[in-house]
Amino acid sequence: AQSNVNVYGLVDMNLGIIDKLSDNAGAAGGNTVRVNSGGMNTSRLGFTGSEDLGGGLKALFQLEMGIAADTGVADTPLFKRQATVGLEGRYGTLLLGRAFTTVYDFVLPYDPMGYAPQYSWAPAGSATGASKYGMTFAFDNLVKYAGKTGNLSYGASYGAGEGSSGGDGAKGAVAVNYAAGPWSAVATYERINGLPDAATGARGATTAWHLGAMYSEGKLKLQAAMRDFRQEVPGSPDLRGTLYWAGSNYKVTPAVTLAGVVYYQDVRHGAQEADPVMVVGRVRYALSRRTDLYVTAAYAKAKHGALAGLARDEAGYGNRQKSVLAGIQHRF
Amino acid sequence: AQSNVNVYGLVDMNLGIIDKLSDNAGAAGGNTVRVNSGGMNTSRLGFTGSEDLGGGLKALFQLEMGIAADTGVADTPLFKRQATVGLEGRYGTLLLGRAFTTVYDFVLPYDPMGYAPQYSWAPAGSATGASKYGMTFAFDNLVKYAGKTGNLSYGASYGAGEGSSGGDGAKGAVAVNYAAGPWSAVATYERINGLPDAATGARGATTAWHLGAMYSEGKLKLQAAMRDFRQEVPGSPDLRGTLYWAGSNYKVTPAVTLAGVVYYQDVRHGAQEADPVMVVGRVRYALSRRTDLYVTAAYAKAKHGALAGLARDEAGYGNRQKSVLAGIQHRF
Amino acid sequence: AQSNVNVYGLVDMNLGIIDKLSDNAGAAGGNTVRVNSGGMNTSRLGFTGSEDLGGGLKALFQLEMGIAADTGVADTPLFKRQATVGLEGRYGTLLLGRAFTTVYDFVLPYDPMGYAPQYSWAPAGSATGASKYGMTFAFDNLVKYAGKTGNLSYGASYGAGEGSSGGDGAKGAVAVNYAAGPWSAVATYERINGLPDAATGARGATTAWHLGAMYSEGKLKLQAAMRDFRQEVPGSPDLRGTLYWAGSNYKVTPAVTLAGVVYYQDVRHGAQEADPVMVVGRVRYALSRRTDLYVTAAYAKAKHGALAGLARDEAGYGNRQKSVLAGIQHRF
Repeated sequence: AQSNVNVYGLVDMNLGIIDKLSDNAGAAGGNTVRVNSGGMNTSRLGFTGSEDLGGGLKALFQLEMGIAADTGVADTPLFKRQATVGLEGRYGTLLLGRAFTTVYDFVLPYDPMGYAPQYSWAPAGSATGASKYGMTFAFDNLVKYAGKTGNLSYGASYGAGEGSSGGDGAKGAVAVNYAAGPWSAVATYERINGLPDAATGARGATTAWHLGAMYSEGKLKLQAAMRDFRQEVPGSPDLRGTLYWAGSNYKVTPAVTLAGVVYYQDVRHGAQEADPVMVVGRVRYALSRRTDLYVTAAYAKAKHGALAGLARDEAGYGNRQKSVLAGIQHRF
Repeated sequence: AQSNVNVYGLVDMNLGIIDKLSDNAGAAGGNTVRVNSGGMNTSRLGFTGSEDLGGGLKALFQLEMGIAADTGVADTPLFKRQATVGLEGRYGTLLLGRAFTTVYDFVLPYDPMGYAPQYSWAPAGSATGASKYGMTFAFDNLVKYAGKTGNLSYGASYGAGEGSSGGDGAKGAVAVNYAAGPWSAVATYERINGLPDAATGARGATTAWHLGAMYSEGKLKLQAAMRDFRQEVPGSPDLRGTLYWAGSNYKVTPAVTLAGVVYYQDVRHGAQEADPVMVVGRVRYALSRRTDLYVTAAYAKAKHGALAGLARDEAGYGNRQKSVLAGIQHRF
Repeated sequence: AQSNVNVYGLVDMNLGIIDKLSDNAGAAGGNTVRVNSGGMNTSRLGFTGSEDLGGGLKALFQLEMGIAADTGVADTPLFKRQATVGLEGRYGTLLLGRAFTTVYDFVLPYDPMGYAPQYSWAPAGSATGASKYGMTFAFDNLVKYAGKTGNLSYGASYGAGEGSSGGDGAKGAVAVNYAAGPWSAVATYERINGLPDAATGARGATTAWHLGAMYSEGKLKLQAAMRDFRQEVPGSPDLRGTLYWAGSNYKVTPAVTLAGVVYYQDVRHGAQEADPVMVVGRVRYALSRRTDLYVTAAYAKAKHGALAGLARDEAGYGNRQKSVLAGIQHRF
């Protein structure tokens, strides 16, 4: 049975210490021991498959759920990570459904932490107040195309707004990547239309673009990128911020890989800006091709007493936060 | 691993245009572009298996979920489509759990659209107001039997009401199908008991019966059926409606199949009846045994300014609605 | 595909009669016919796998959901039964995630009904009022270890409270099992810390310990155990109860197994105690290695007019309750 379906996934769990969580904000800011899901990558379970249609054409499907393995519940409802069907051929891949956007896909290799939930600000900035200026991870009602011509890869995502006016709630993302020898570079743009205000009819939007560069040769990979984020709110000044990051992956031995990054968010509105910064380092030890042990340490801080949080999904409760954790990831 | 379990399913997605949706009801009724899940069939993922017990007896199980692949969420909670265990032998198949009813199973081959979410009224009529007079798709607390004697197939479903009085909330469905050469015919009956009114103790019920006939020879299949629906509400006149449909499937080439149907709901109570009608046509192009492309066009209208909707799961916002869509279905 | 993942599970359904359910409490207490999921074991679907890391070390993962197959919905949210990753080697097994506790694992073989939802009070007592004094089935944020030295098995579970003070909400469970020839014995202890009262800062806790013994030779297995439960509520007297059970499994023929147990809850606080008792018997007929038919009969009663319920998950509505049911379980 099951010749048509590949069941795959990963479970990633760790034991960590973190300070200044919500539940001890009133106290001196002591440390909390936690068991966490998703240190390097979100725990997940998926079902995928393809069918050769002849002439170089393939049909594809993918269903993938996210799992908060520390409590056993869904990290995202059912197949909110991926639920797609499509065709792949010589002109590229066309998918319909719910999936990560073109921008998410293209920027991922440029983050030395690979969007690690513990900890990367590449997909979204620090959770501090209004400065969580990130990319839109995935679109509902998605049409996604990806193609390749020589060294150039390119793609586009469209998320139908499904309103009467074509543009309300519509989402778009485009990206190009160029690789030449050890060098590669990426450029992306996305625009997410809001819904019109009932009273004024005015419609906001967020736009974000990325630029990134990578040098990869042998044991070493150097990665740097930036994101410019702008949120247009009708009748108010735009919210703006630019995220910069630079870091590296280095394979010390075939089994041991070091990763390190600095993320810096330059908030560009308001008088006293938080301008949070985070430094993350990780040692990964491969027990096999499918199983890793890892130790991660991270430190974040914000200026002017603003709140800073390491995790993009948790609020900050102090102007600095640090954590260290040790875990295991198994892929299947 | 997994020799005992077959993982199966399908993802069906399309891009379509539809007019007069809720969110543009106030406007001139413009068109909306949508990315939809389930054009020909509800996207789904399932797990099934059987075990040979000897003597012609088999144990069976099935777990099947519905997926709204355009947003990645559940179309129905977990395994609400199918969650059964049972035995199959020379005297038929007996299942316990949650599943589609005998009526749903037996009427399905008589619908030229195969209960397509986009669009068939065979399982349930137009979503217009009170006229959504349909079959009951599935029973909780189900005991289902299906058997076959020569050309005669028969089955029955019982859904326990689980109240103190045996009949409250109880559900029953029976059906017979007779096939002779290119001809076949079906007759079904179902009765769904309500719960007693707290004050009067009176209990309503809905009943529905179907009659259908099919001619199937070579490339051509002709199908026609009717459903008589009656909802008994204690102290009020019954709500009654009769749905008629007739259509065809024709295999133009081994890869191309045309389908077309007319559904007509004869509402039989009240003064000014909506009596909605829908015409649906579909071209299906088989890329392989497991992957199809399709184009579907549908038009529905109601009388006396009543609201008509194409989809059985969406309200109507005008007295007519039309849609055209193009999609892909991949089965695994 | 899927060489790394084993898809497994079971569906267990039955048809039963039970008296004195909530919906007929006001009446003379008539019988209700029900279709139930999980007579012998909770219906479930899981994904598991392991990877040989060399040197006797293995990586493991497990994801398991519970299913209420009578309605097709989740018995527990997603993978709340098991969501773990870990390592197994010569020094034992270490898991991180969400899973059953060490106490749950170690006491299970000592219950002749194997924690059957219909019916066992071994994991939790009768649902009657305050006397549902049970073990904690599973921990979130779990670190679990299990090991074995000769005839001695031992294990420990820790569930991080994840509060600022290490102890708030923390959970611990330890157990040892000793086997010698046909005899084996188990001893366990668990402590579940509550959260501090906002006003007083005082923190309650529940503690429970088990002792059990088993004699297993050839066709016969005799099992007896007890649980002492204490709930500390700051400012109030402790709630205390001791559950005793004794029973047997006997293989009449290779296909037919009889099981019988008496559970008795000695409530040890208050003036008029319910002291509920339940007698359960079951005949299991194996159609194959993976499929069983079974008939279960159970009777529970409480003293002093207190309410008694057979099921640990349902309230009682009379001072006695009885049920008989016939079902099928298929494992895959």
